[in-house]
Amino acid sequence: MPEYLPTAPYRGTRDFLPPEMSVRTQVFGKLYEVIERYGFQRYDGPILESAEIYEAKSGEEIANQQLYTLTDRGGRRLALRPEMTPSVARMIAGHAGALQFPVRWYSHPNCHRYERPQRGRVREHWQINVDIFGSTSANCEIEIFELIHDMLVSLGASEDMFVIRANDRNLLSSALTDVVGVPSEQLTEVFGLVDRWEKVERDKLAAAATEIGLTDKQFEKLSDVLGSGTDLLAELPSEVTENSNLVKVLRSGSADLVRFDPMIVRGLAYYTSTVFEVFDTSPENRRALFGGGSYSDLASLFTPQQIPGLGFGMGDVTLMDFLKTHDLLPQPRNEVDVVVIPVAEDLEDAARSVATKLRREGLRTSVPLEPRKLGKELTRADKAGARAVVIVGQEDWDAGNVTIRSLTTREQRQVALEATPAAIAELLDE
Amino acid sequence: MPEYLPTAPYRGTRDFLPPEMSVRTQVFGKLYEVIERYGFQRYDGPILESAEIYEAKSGEEIANQQLYTLTDRGGRRLALRPEMTPSVARMIAGHAGALQFPVRWYSHPNCHRYERPQRGRVREHWQINVDIFGSTSANCEIEIFELIHDMLVSLGASEDMFVIRANDRNLLSSALTDVVGVPSEQLTEVFGLVDRWEKVERDKLAAAATEIGLTDKQFEKLSDVLGSGTDLLAELPSEVTENSNLVKVLRSGSADLVRFDPMIVRGLAYYTSTVFEVFDTSPENRRALFGGGSYSDLASLFTPQQIPGLGFGMGDVTLMDFLKTHDLLPQPRNEVDVVVIPVAEDLEDAARSVATKLRREGLRTSVPLEPRKLGKELTRADKAGARAVVIVGQEDWDAGNVTIRSLTTREQRQVALEATPAAIAELLDE
Repeated sequence: MPEYLPTAPYRGTRDFLPPEMSVRTQVFGKLYEVIERYGFQRYDGPILESAEIYEAKSGEEIANQQLYTLTDRGGRRLALRPEMTPSVARMIAGHAGALQFPVRWYSHPNCHRYERPQRGRVREHWQINVDIFGSTSANCEIEIFELIHDMLVSLGASEDMFVIRANDRNLLSSALTDVVGVPSEQLTEVFGLVDRWEKVERDKLAAAATEIGLTDKQFEKLSDVLGSGTDLLAELPSEVTENSNLVKVLRSGSADLVRFDPMIVRGLAYYTSTVFEVFDTSPENRRALFGGGSYSDLASLFTPQQIPGLGFGMGDVTLMDFLKTHDLLPQPRNEVDVVVIPVAEDLEDAARSVATKLRREGLRTSVPLEPRKLGKELTRADKAGARAVVIVGQEDWDAGNVTIRSLTTREQRQVALEATPAAIAELLDE
Repeated sequence: MPEYLPTAPYRGTRDFLPPEMSVRTQVFGKLYEVIERYGFQRYDGPILESAEIYEAKSGEEIANQQLYTLTDRGGRRLALRPEMTPSVARMIAGHAGALQFPVRWYSHPNCHRYERPQRGRVREHWQINVDIFGSTSANCEIEIFELIHDMLVSLGASEDMFVIRANDRNLLSSALTDVVGVPSEQLTEVFGLVDRWEKVERDKLAAAATEIGLTDKQFEKLSDVLGSGTDLLAELPSEVTENSNLVKVLRSGSADLVRFDPMIVRGLAYYTSTVFEVFDTSPENRRALFGGGSYSDLASLFTPQQIPGLGFGMGDVTLMDFLKTHDLLPQPRNEVDVVVIPVAEDLEDAARSVATKLRREGLRTSVPLEPRKLGKELTRADKAGARAVVIVGQEDWDAGNVTIRSLTTREQRQVALEATPAAIAELLDE
């Protein structure tokens, strides 16, 4: 029996110590800024939701195996949200009368899934959710693809590092029915097969196709269709292509944002037409980074009002992997800009008053908490990433002065107390 | 049986729609900035923790009644964190070897307690946690009191709106033992009585005192002591006052930050000397807003290393009540700065290209998703809080121009496409 409790976090969850937290804050701070430049408004909701909102709607896998559930002391069955969509559907339904649709909303919740931890999969992850609710215009698709592009570029990615692969489930249905000749009762199973296309070996796919009831010829045709790109569109009935938002995107001035790919399906049940996934183009990291799609009726659990939506969820784990692969992770921020060091204990009040002046000018400034020799304190200030120190000595102080020192050039000079903030700001600008 | 699921959030939790979220983001964004100006580093940790870290250490009330617990599919007993201190103790213990103490850390977690919802109490709240670990210097107290002062002032509070009432449990123990004559075996019970002093009527306190075994005279003396302020310090043995960080604060240049109040105890078990609570001075809202204290041995569950700490937790509900009472809540931010309106559908690509240019200059800019008449679009832009619109018409566009219009003055004029960002920026500056 161990005497002390373990210090590791619960399996599949993560501690963010200050250096990791600084990286996370910088990355997501940039993303918030880009998202808000498009006019999206941030919202948030509780982590605990009534369990039934997941059990009624989500994919089987989540409801049965991956949901963290509990019962409160009042007997209410609750779940830790595994994703944000049911929560936001609940909110949108509850406030639909007061909202001016279409609305652009985003959030940054943590979500929980009981998974076996492995690369890219954790039990608690932080996911940016971006959605447009209340419009079925192809302008939604264009805006979402533009936004994704700008988000990744804002983090330093170049356009050759990622690709948005998009499909329309209605186009795929038509291709399967009209080109491959799949009977409509087999469509769902073939969708499942397509979803596994890139993850499973060819002979296993063929065996699965046979099991579903596809002929060898149909399997070959399916393979052609999935590899065909935009050429496929010419083979589909025009009433199908004319009604596809994705086809409109491909015909607009924004066509180069996205690559049509009939292989993209996405497992989750609620997408109804457009589906897309963003891929890292690096051979080291060939997986979907994140994805999304459109739903014709978001909030049917909560309201008879039909509210369409289009959006995506971007998890922090795969995003950070992407940034790491491409050497785009920012450095953790330094702890402070300036340290104000009193050379004796009875100068601590004086040092604090100098620090107050510097903070008022927006400088991140600390004062040592424990008395130490000046040399040691300079070393600590350097380790904390400070680029300047203010040394408060008795004689200087009595004459209304302090000494400022650059930790970059190691030059130091005396300045008048009231000139300190300006002198430090200048020194930090060098 | 209802046809649709309810849209209200789980009882005691809150949805933050964009207007409320904007207020929350603005308020806490300011607080992050002030905290970081003191050199505090942000961290974060998982919501799920092993249940035993609360059951072993927290107050009885939390462990038995208020903790949300669950068991994962691996049989591991978990809890939703009710507070951040055990999590941060775990992290500090796990990384103590790599940290350069003292460290200044802060976080902004959501915490869950199963409580009956009422004014100021919810089941999920967001709490700023600020701590210094690894120092027992009175400079920690001074810095924490200064920081609290600056945090509230940064939100618009004036110094007469709040007061920090502080005590040292060792001073109170000494006062109870040496002045009131309480036997040491009754100290814990009398602490409990002091903790209820302002919440319970006088005759009930007297009855409780009698039950504990205090004489009427002792009860009167106790009452005098609790109302006495700094005069009490002269009555205490000097070895007690000389060792008190709070007494050092009261003798420093920062004495006016805090009011000595022997009545402050704070229920939670782990505080060992300094304890404090911040009160709203408004008669409408006479409750502790938040509080904190010092602990001599933070991480004893996790490590034999003795790590002292001092800190506080500031919950969002009481803070927002304070700001509301004093009319200090910020306005929700406008949705966008600019709307770019194409007058016909085939100008949508053109409008998007203008929006892209404006966004690159940092302007929050939207383009309508659905075609509407210009008049309607202007009304919507006004409602969204935009202060300018760009109108993209065919003739203008063909000539390389657009029309910009101020929604404040309603003046409009034609500008060259490439001059648009500068013209809009100028218009927004007016």
